[in-house]
Amino acid sequence: MKKIFLTMAVAALAGCASAPIALKDMGSFHVGGREITVSGRPVKEVTFTAGGVPAKVDPNGVYQVEQMYVQYFIPQNERGALPLLMWHGGGLTGVTYETTPDGREGWLNYFIKKGWAVYNSDAVERGRAGWTDAFKGDPVFLTKENPFERFRIGTGPGSYDKDPSKMKAQPGSQFPLEGYDNFTKQGVPRWTTTDDAIIAAYIALVDKVCPCVVLVHSQAGQFGQKVAQARPDKVKALVLVEPAGLGDAKLVDRLKNTPILTVYGDFIEQDARWPTIRANQMKQLEAVRAAGGRYEVVNLPQVGIKGNSHMMMMDKNNLQVADIIQGWLEKQGLYK
Amino acid sequence: MKKIFLTMAVAALAGCASAPIALKDMGSFHVGGREITVSGRPVKEVTFTAGGVPAKVDPNGVYQVEQMYVQYFIPQNERGALPLLMWHGGGLTGVTYETTPDGREGWLNYFIKKGWAVYNSDAVERGRAGWTDAFKGDPVFLTKENPFERFRIGTGPGSYDKDPSKMKAQPGSQFPLEGYDNFTKQGVPRWTTTDDAIIAAYIALVDKVCPCVVLVHSQAGQFGQKVAQARPDKVKALVLVEPAGLGDAKLVDRLKNTPILTVYGDFIEQDARWPTIRANQMKQLEAVRAAGGRYEVVNLPQVGIKGNSHMMMMDKNNLQVADIIQGWLEKQGLYK
Repeated sequence: MKKIFLTMAVAALAGCASAPIALKDMGSFHVGGREITVSGRPVKEVTFTAGGVPAKVDPNGVYQVEQMYVQYFIPQNERGALPLLMWHGGGLTGVTYETTPDGREGWLNYFIKKGWAVYNSDAVERGRAGWTDAFKGDPVFLTKENPFERFRIGTGPGSYDKDPSKMKAQPGSQFPLEGYDNFTKQGVPRWTTTDDAIIAAYIALVDKVCPCVVLVHSQAGQFGQKVAQARPDKVKALVLVEPAGLGDAKLVDRLKNTPILTVYGDFIEQDARWPTIRANQMKQLEAVRAAGGRYEVVNLPQVGIKGNSHMMMMDKNNLQVADIIQGWLEKQGLYK
Repeated sequence: MKKIFLTMAVAALAGCASAPIALKDMGSFHVGGREITVSGRPVKEVTFTAGGVPAKVDPNGVYQVEQMYVQYFIPQNERGALPLLMWHGGGLTGVTYETTPDGREGWLNYFIKKGWAVYNSDAVERGRAGWTDAFKGDPVFLTKENPFERFRIGTGPGSYDKDPSKMKAQPGSQFPLEGYDNFTKQGVPRWTTTDDAIIAAYIALVDKVCPCVVLVHSQAGQFGQKVAQARPDKVKALVLVEPAGLGDAKLVDRLKNTPILTVYGDFIEQDARWPTIRANQMKQLEAVRAAGGRYEVVNLPQVGIKGNSHMMMMDKNNLQVADIIQGWLEKQGLYK
């Protein structure tokens, strides 16, 4: 009898353990945005679907614009002390943190499995957030060459080739070259005039789900720092993964109670832009420290982790980099 | 001792049972698409991020276009005999099947919890699929009024009002009016010239993950039927939720081995377009039957389920409608 119960207990526990992702809840929502009114345009007749019935479409009226999209995953056994918000970089979406372009697990699954309630999002005008023709200026579309040469995957201008075997990758690059084509499929057009709208929507998100930890990448470096400055009581820690933009220099003191981790990959010294981008960020973080704040910088090559590109959440050693972030969050007392 | 083991077993089982979503795996990928080459455009200097360092952007080169996005959830205990693919309607994304605009569970969670491996996607040019300025024609943007009046939520032209208490909803409408504003945040621009590209990407998806069941909504009625005609050996059942477009009339015999369920909501007779849209679909399904196929039609009001809009996966009784689909799939022997 004892043995039967023991077997049952073991089997039941094994059943649990073998569900690698056990969620209490998952779902999505849109947040933020505003309404604009358009008038004076002609009514059109649109056949939305081939073989369908034409419909009159009046383009005049009220439009919903500048909202953002958020997908959340709440683990069954929550171990993060606060929700973890993940914000992608420019020309990309929340897909950044999902499965890597060569099919391995990304940081989304990593942090969910660690027990963090994760909110992964698409910023205003990107992905499932939708977009409008009311944005100022033209959107920027990137060639397949561009990120390869600019994200320190390749050795710079002229390093891209359609044939992966002819690509001039950085020596020892951790980026999965066989997945580069798939990576370019993740790109979305982006404007350069929408920063204020993006920040407004992120503030609406923080007001809805925080206190929290915010992890940002690249363009979202600006958004994470500015939103933390706008809501210093709600952003309890900031993880800046190769931030490409800064906070407001006049408001550095607002970050004095928000511990900051900044992580940089490899090949920065050889790049045309990244030494300056990093130096500007370091200068601002020094100002934060002077105002009473604290930050830590991990330059991966300096801790023996070599070959990382700007897209380190997709690199072959992406989970090793995630371990560094996880360890830092634990040190901040944000993990149960 | 017995009691301790029993307690352990019960506690362990309860631990499992209380993880409402137990997944073996989840992830995402992009599929399909092609490359185009652009030349002769001027090189620009772009400051991607305020406070960043300007970069030269050469718009000439190779672009990735017409891929689609897919997110998948594989339950720990799979009970669907095949994967279930969910394809959204026009001007929308896979968000259609996620949390309803008023915050209840949608069909994505419903079918995952039933044990289906679900592949929820964003079609070419929608959401996380990305888009390009190389599509022909202009995208269509919808006012907040438009879906309210066209999706049989309101009583027709003039029925929308920004103030929910003044909206003229269909009598007994099941659409959650308090969530209508949120619903409009889910909308994305869409072209009317991209059907072939969308179908090509869906075929690439089917080739990658099927045999399967395909569930489609509205505009995707056309895509589901045409893709099943292109891959009759791979699409083992079709669920058409208010299909707005048809298959290829010359190829109806290709659907003879694919059982089809078609579901319609309420208020169709009063609508300007839906009686014709439904009649055209019925005529084509009769041709499928004449060719040896089989289909079933559920007009919800005729089985006592009243008040459903075109967005029945979001309506207040959305899970009751899902039960009908689940029951039909079970009857087809597609559920373990």
